Amino acid sequence: MIESSPAQGNNLDPWYDSYAARTAGLAASEVRALFAVASRPEVVSLAGGMPYVSALPQELVTGAMDKVMAERGPVALQYGSGQGVPALREQILEVMALEGISGSADDVVVTTGSQHALELFSKLFIDPGDVVIAEGPSYVTAMVIFNSYQADVDHVPMDEHGLIPGALREHIARLKAAGRRIKFLYTIPTFHNPAGVTLTWERRLEILEICKSEGVLVLEDNPYGLLYFGDRPPAAMRSIEEDGVVYLGTFSKTLAPGFRLGWALAPHAIREKLILANEAAVLSPSSFTQLVVSEYLSQADWRGQIDTFRGVYRERKEAMLSALQEHLPELSWTNPNGGFYVWLTLPESLDSKAMLPRAVKELVAYTPGTAFYADGNGRQNIRLSFCYPTPEQIRVGIRRLANVVSGELDLLETFAGTGDLSQLRMSRGAFPPSDLR
Amino acid sequence: MIESSPAQGNNLDPWYDSYAARTAGLAASEVRALFAVASRPEVVSLAGGMPYVSALPQELVTGAMDKVMAERGPVALQYGSGQGVPALREQILEVMALEGISGSADDVVVTTGSQHALELFSKLFIDPGDVVIAEGPSYVTAMVIFNSYQADVDHVPMDEHGLIPGALREHIARLKAAGRRIKFLYTIPTFHNPAGVTLTWERRLEILEICKSEGVLVLEDNPYGLLYFGDRPPAAMRSIEEDGVVYLGTFSKTLAPGFRLGWALAPHAIREKLILANEAAVLSPSSFTQLVVSEYLSQADWRGQIDTFRGVYRERKEAMLSALQEHLPELSWTNPNGGFYVWLTLPESLDSKAMLPRAVKELVAYTPGTAFYADGNGRQNIRLSFCYPTPEQIRVGIRRLANVVSGELDLLETFAGTGDLSQLRMSRGAFPPSDLR
Repeated sequence: MIESSPAQGNNLDPWYDSYAARTAGLAASEVRALFAVASRPEVVSLAGGMPYVSALPQELVTGAMDKVMAERGPVALQYGSGQGVPALREQILEVMALEGISGSADDVVVTTGSQHALELFSKLFIDPGDVVIAEGPSYVTAMVIFNSYQADVDHVPMDEHGLIPGALREHIARLKAAGRRIKFLYTIPTFHNPAGVTLTWERRLEILEICKSEGVLVLEDNPYGLLYFGDRPPAAMRSIEEDGVVYLGTFSKTLAPGFRLGWALAPHAIREKLILANEAAVLSPSSFTQLVVSEYLSQADWRGQIDTFRGVYRERKEAMLSALQEHLPELSWTNPNGGFYVWLTLPESLDSKAMLPRAVKELVAYTPGTAFYADGNGRQNIRLSFCYPTPEQIRVGIRRLANVVSGELDLLETFAGTGDLSQLRMSRGAFPPSDLR
Repeated sequence: MIESSPAQGNNLDPWYDSYAARTAGLAASEVRALFAVASRPEVVSLAGGMPYVSALPQELVTGAMDKVMAERGPVALQYGSGQGVPALREQILEVMALEGISGSADDVVVTTGSQHALELFSKLFIDPGDVVIAEGPSYVTAMVIFNSYQADVDHVPMDEHGLIPGALREHIARLKAAGRRIKFLYTIPTFHNPAGVTLTWERRLEILEICKSEGVLVLEDNPYGLLYFGDRPPAAMRSIEEDGVVYLGTFSKTLAPGFRLGWALAPHAIREKLILANEAAVLSPSSFTQLVVSEYLSQADWRGQIDTFRGVYRERKEAMLSALQEHLPELSWTNPNGGFYVWLTLPESLDSKAMLPRAVKELVAYTPGTAFYADGNGRQNIRLSFCYPTPEQIRVGIRRLANVVSGELDLLETFAGTGDLSQLRMSRGAFPPSDLR
């Protein structure tokens, strides 16, 4: 309303008092602020999560587009259904089969990127004050959504084998004892963003068992699973358990994010509500991009194209790891078997967020670990992305980062006087101790 | 959770008790159920709101697509910004200028259809128990969204000149006296869906004045404004008032809905929050469809194409009105000066919702008026869409509808015995009396 309460009397937004309570949770993410900085061409950005779409031969896309317009133009240009194009949903089953998932096209809901599936799912499930359990660290923009629906995010620690089952059990018990309402476990079990680790098979079984016995729904977010560097992709959690898992997939990493197409595979009743929420939000996902992607999957060697992407990212990961080994050997980092990210741990005395302006001045950008925690944790960590820059740019970027780290440590030495500097440079585990919270 | 409360003990959805309170508001709309029925080829559907995309020469779209992929493929395939492509936002200013709107591209937020702008705006503003004022009748899927955020929709009556200012004033006073929190007025002032009427210039001024003095934000939804049948489009409310109006536009009707592109033009502070909400929901609208539409606007005669659409719809409206005059002369209906819809009023004794199965049996589909009210009103009304069927199909459809109406009246006569039947067939105003609620 026009009238502001006295407390907001000097706010310049006349509608300040009209916003919903949930809107307070919609803050600009640290990653967002970085986009502007990192887009300057002289900066090597190890910050974003943009796939390297130039590795996709454009004729595969234009061929699909032309065929769609020639044969099904009026359908492509029209509204579609809130669930998505049936043929595409069948093809999505083929994609998911590569990770061991079997299901029905009836239970697939096509969304405007898997981000929108995450939004719709959150809208359906989260009441203010509910708890969402997530790995610590976790995906930034998932946490923005959870916050926007006024959930509290409870981080369960990970180690190099992924989420720690015993810690999950403890957190659930503690939350239940405190009378908290746990809505779901949000997890990225495979090639984790930002941690770059993968949940082991044994832990997948154990975590599914815990969630089943505790009545906690699992939301498995799997954008990276098909970008594996080994012989085969890890089996999805949804391939093991059907009724207790809602699975999210996307074409953003295996094809291109510009189409904004992802999906949810969900048990019947949840699937039905996702469709209603999708219709309310966007009426239908784009018919045009759905038909283009469907045509691409029909006529192109999409499995071969995924192999191409895997090769590109594997090479970049290796460039990053060898550069880290060369320039920052005293630090520790994760060794991802797929996906886009390495999680780097700084000496305890350094603060990744405070160090960022200096890094940008040295023409390298990264995402500080604090962006991936809802609770202020992560100051000692950095997410390094190897998806978009070339191997040569990665090597330059890591060298610059090493200069920044070294400069920061020298500064600390200067001011610390006679302290025991070996402590400062001591290598730490890639993760904070698991009893941290 | 797995454990159901006793009351839901026999519900088949194990997650039944886990949904958020807001999810109860996400019911399948009547329009949705109709889509399945009306898609049978032998049914003449006067029910949907699908634009006639076949009137768009496909080479205009393929030309734009090919140019985008040839010149900016990697950008089109990549993530974009949460606000949308700058060049497209500039072009959107040109589109809005046709309805008298001036603004800055900085204040435009591109969304996944204007439906998504409506969803994001609602998420930002509605707390449970808030009131949204809307015309009675109003756009179905807007009300689904308002419900999904647990708002109460308060319908203010319309007449053939649109929303009635005096009634709006009364409703606001009554709501405020009852201590209700009014969040905004949702209005479709031009070529209203479903009523087919347009708010007069004098009333636009008066309603903006009322909203300003009462501190009520105006959400102007304008999908149809450029599809005018007269000499020029009505001036948008946003062209009169800037700070108190959030304006929604779309390419779904002037180009094609398959791209899922619309926009909001909002005051700075609201615009900033819309961008954050957009990023959280979808990261960015499709770069691919944004660049294609931007290229189309650059190289094609898009104003001429709108004229083509206007001609198509004008002809169809005339076919519908003359068929109504011929086959249902005793009823009353609105005479739209643009857009897609005619609002028909049945004799008081008939119920449009109850009559629908019989109509479908007679191979004609429509949307019963009840779909457009949050309060059960509208049983005496029907929304007839003239956008998609050809003039010949429209004539067939209205003839079938007349048979249905006549059959229902005969049935009533048979059962009513010796009642005064002239009453039944008496023509009524197109709207319920303005003091109805």
